[in-house]
Amino acid sequence: MTTSTALLLADLTGVAVFAASGASAAVAKRLDLFGVVFVGFVAALGGGILRDLVIDEVPPLAFADWRYAATAALTAAATFWLHPRLARLRTTVLVLDAAGLGLFTVTGTLKALDAGVPAVGACLLGMLTAIGGGLGRDLLTGEIPVVLRREIYAVAALAGAVAVALLDAFGRADAAGLTAAAVFVFALRLVSLRRRWSAPVATLRPPRTGARGPGS
Amino acid sequence: MTTSTALLLADLTGVAVFAASGASAAVAKRLDLFGVVFVGFVAALGGGILRDLVIDEVPPLAFADWRYAATAALTAAATFWLHPRLARLRTTVLVLDAAGLGLFTVTGTLKALDAGVPAVGACLLGMLTAIGGGLGRDLLTGEIPVVLRREIYAVAALAGAVAVALLDAFGRADAAGLTAAAVFVFALRLVSLRRRWSAPVATLRPPRTGARGPGS
Amino acid sequence: MTTSTALLLADLTGVAVFAASGASAAVAKRLDLFGVVFVGFVAALGGGILRDLVIDEVPPLAFADWRYAATAALTAAATFWLHPRLARLRTTVLVLDAAGLGLFTVTGTLKALDAGVPAVGACLLGMLTAIGGGLGRDLLTGEIPVVLRREIYAVAALAGAVAVALLDAFGRADAAGLTAAAVFVFALRLVSLRRRWSAPVATLRPPRTGARGPGS
Repeated sequence: MTTSTALLLADLTGVAVFAASGASAAVAKRLDLFGVVFVGFVAALGGGILRDLVIDEVPPLAFADWRYAATAALTAAATFWLHPRLARLRTTVLVLDAAGLGLFTVTGTLKALDAGVPAVGACLLGMLTAIGGGLGRDLLTGEIPVVLRREIYAVAALAGAVAVALLDAFGRADAAGLTAAAVFVFALRLVSLRRRWSAPVATLRPPRTGARGPGS
Repeated sequence: MTTSTALLLADLTGVAVFAASGASAAVAKRLDLFGVVFVGFVAALGGGILRDLVIDEVPPLAFADWRYAATAALTAAATFWLHPRLARLRTTVLVLDAAGLGLFTVTGTLKALDAGVPAVGACLLGMLTAIGGGLGRDLLTGEIPVVLRREIYAVAALAGAVAVALLDAFGRADAAGLTAAAVFVFALRLVSLRRRWSAPVATLRPPRTGARGPGS
Repeated sequence: MTTSTALLLADLTGVAVFAASGASAAVAKRLDLFGVVFVGFVAALGGGILRDLVIDEVPPLAFADWRYAATAALTAAATFWLHPRLARLRTTVLVLDAAGLGLFTVTGTLKALDAGVPAVGACLLGMLTAIGGGLGRDLLTGEIPVVLRREIYAVAALAGAVAVALLDAFGRADAAGLTAAAVFVFALRLVSLRRRWSAPVATLRPPRTGARGPGS
């Protein structure tokens, strides 16, 4: 198996995993078969479409290579029919989702760097590639995006993107280094899930009574 | 009347119809005059803007040709003032909306094919052109997109896009063939409305009591 | 201080102000630190990213110049820690927000005109640059966009964009003219806030009983 075949297989695995997560959310919202497939498509390919628009790679891969759309659609349709069984596989899905997060972070950051985006912008784009699909999924199903609310998710992606940018800056963005970055995101996500790590939430202090300032 | 004039008139008719649908939804949400015009603009032109960004036709037609924005804005403003009368015309609006769906599907798919997008991607883009405005309308007004929930809507657009791609592949994408494809989408949408056809919805089976598996 | 330095400083001030508004909204929704920074980033840079995608300036400034992302992130993080104090500064924030609105309207419209977008489209883009971030903020936090609901906000931006396009058409888009346009938007916004001006809202008349027409 060549490197590019390995990358394609890994990419399509990520697409399938995110399609399953989107389709599950759509089933829970009582969308019909088409709606389930559509939300699965957005969850699997939305982040990559956004990345490709920003770096002006047109048409985006999701429209240029039919295998991406086909993988997303078939996985989402399968989820529609199989979802009661998938519910039992919740742990498996979380693990695969973490793997997809690591993968999309690495490929997204790399593509942005290759397109000439400076390092800070490339890190942001890598993170957006990884979390963009989940954002689209939650917007379509009427939720405040869960990636903004819970646990170490986007933060893991951002840390991985910074790692890729550093590897690239030091000329070490080879297969071993990139794999390590993807595994790092994967592991950080899983450990934070297991330990229920979370970014801090601001305390909303009640207004103090009797001590109001004089202003408007 | 030349062909291009006919196409432009048909296109602007689609813009007007979708602007009216967006404006009606915004009036129902108690948005002010500007909000009504803005949602009408997004509903009428959002799908085309998305399509033009993906195929890198910049600036998108909605910004490059003032007649598009003017048609959308005037129709939305008219809807703001006339909406109680429009409510009586609900059947008319549904028929016009189906016509717009057929038209935008055909023009969207054709433009994508002309821009060199492969067939599968072009079908997806044609569908997105037709349903994108309605998606934007529902996101702005805080609804789960209705095109994902009810009846044969996006499915009709997708079927029409596939028809256009097939016509194109066999060199039959002439005026007669394309008109037939648009009429096909139009008719499929109307028939499904009349007969209350709908894509299937997944059954959410309650968890079986007393028969849980051992795993997590 | 050169003109371009002045413009950059003014631009970054606008970014900071909008980042603070986005972060405040996210804190109120109980998002975690990352979510607050992310919503701040979208509020500060979303409008400009949309504009740059439409005029095909890629990668967008938000990704190409690290100072934009850094300003947005640092301001949002500061808001996360300082928000109880910011609440007291509500009037100040409203004033700064109006200043940001004026600035982004002018720079957005100018950039679109420079990129060859016709006048009507450039006005729409200038307005979208100014209100786009607020739209993204409200979509992410599950609100019907407030710029569509209240007061003269987008309308002030649109009026300023038309002023810039007129100045440009008559060859008067110099520093004095552009500053006047920005101040005009700023003042219009503040006066409408003070006087509670608002665009009209449609009356939803109840259906008349006993006087139904014969139609469907």
